[in-house]
Amino acid sequence: MEQINDIQVVPCTNSNYLKPFRVHYSQNGTKKSWDFMRTHDSVSVLIFNTTSHCFVLVKQFRPAVYMCEWERTKPKAPEPAEDAVKDEGAAANPDTPSGQPQGQAAGTPESSELPHPPASAGMTYELCAGLVDKADLSLEEIARQEVLEECGYDVPVAKLRRITSYRSGVGVTGAKQTMFYAEVSEDNRVSEGGGEPQEGELIEVVKVPLHEAMTFAYDESIPKTMGVIFSFIWFHNNMSPKYKISTNV
Amino acid sequence: MEQINDIQVVPCTNSNYLKPFRVHYSQNGTKKSWDFMRTHDSVSVLIFNTTSHCFVLVKQFRPAVYMCEWERTKPKAPEPAEDAVKDEGAAANPDTPSGQPQGQAAGTPESSELPHPPASAGMTYELCAGLVDKADLSLEEIARQEVLEECGYDVPVAKLRRITSYRSGVGVTGAKQTMFYAEVSEDNRVSEGGGEPQEGELIEVVKVPLHEAMTFAYDESIPKTMGVIFSFIWFHNNMSPKYKISTNV
Repeated sequence: MEQINDIQVVPCTNSNYLKPFRVHYSQNGTKKSWDFMRTHDSVSVLIFNTTSHCFVLVKQFRPAVYMCEWERTKPKAPEPAEDAVKDEGAAANPDTPSGQPQGQAAGTPESSELPHPPASAGMTYELCAGLVDKADLSLEEIARQEVLEECGYDVPVAKLRRITSYRSGVGVTGAKQTMFYAEVSEDNRVSEGGGEPQEGELIEVVKVPLHEAMTFAYDESIPKTMGVIFSFIWFHNNMSPKYKISTNV
Repeated sequence: MEQINDIQVVPCTNSNYLKPFRVHYSQNGTKKSWDFMRTHDSVSVLIFNTTSHCFVLVKQFRPAVYMCEWERTKPKAPEPAEDAVKDEGAAANPDTPSGQPQGQAAGTPESSELPHPPASAGMTYELCAGLVDKADLSLEEIARQEVLEECGYDVPVAKLRRITSYRSGVGVTGAKQTMFYAEVSEDNRVSEGGGEPQEGELIEVVKVPLHEAMTFAYDESIPKTMGVIFSFIWFHNNMSPKYKISTNV
């Protein structure tokens, strides 16, 4: 059971990870601008263990999800603080379409003095996934590394089957995510997985039995990404005959 | 055909839309921090027109997607500029897990002098969708408004069927997205849709015939969100008997 304590939130104008950019452009002659962030493409992998007939997911504490839930428990939005002066820049840029999702008002630093939800509010079930941040590796090679590091299975690249690709976060990052399918067996198991603790990763490897997968996918009380839902259904439609599944969708 | 010109990219430290925050916390006694952004929850709607047996999607120019593709065409990453000094803050924060996706180096302002891809590189097919930014409206009411504004169909709230919900952008925003299904007919058509031009929205309403839907879903040359793919498959699995579909998944 995860314990989350001593929570403090501060505005962050110099993040090493989240760097907003602004693009000015003309669309059919109309001047516009849009704020976005550069990020890496990513890969995700639906892992099916043919020995145990289970899907292998990762479960981890996601601070961003947790903060969403914390926000939800508050009676009202925080008051704007002195750093609201930051808005001046945007106000001086009248051609910014107001249709762009607007960040909620910057609050004063919030401390753990406020009541906060249990750690479970920030735990999510996800596909094994990783960023495409190594230019010399193929998508399949990066996917293979993630399966090994996060879930402990050593899968040959040739066994990775590409499912499809799509755009994520089209309003903010627009990066491309490519999804793979990997069948593994206990013979491929070389470690417990769990990510790279020295990089701050704290990942729990979770198995979802095949016969429970569709119920899991549509159970909204289980926090998960759309990738989990989509890939379980993809498996149901494409792999069912092979594994003789009888499930309700 | 969209025309995109006069593109200029600048670092943006005072975005009114993208406001990074940093949360400091203890996880099982270990001090950590994570940079995230607050955003609104959202709704999306799979619309099926029972008169024409077509899905109704929206297609729009997404600057973030376009910039991803522009980045991809460059021979190498831009050189770090003077604003790289912003990294100092993060460096002074040693407990930031390096596992957090790191923003690519801030470049010098880039201008339209550089060759850039055609506008089509930034166009994406998406479900009709919108932000949950009106506290007094239910998710269904917000979904109804989006269907009306973006696609021009006036659908009674009672006809919106909840498909499921999930977490989006778990690394950065972690917001909850709820997906609905709406059957419409030409009788529900009250306008051309197209969004709110005064808010900068420039949305094209696109119909995908039912019998082409699964091919569309898995055609990677058509840029789209995972919501489109998932919802088409959901329909195939759940509505096929009703509409006598014969498609390959």
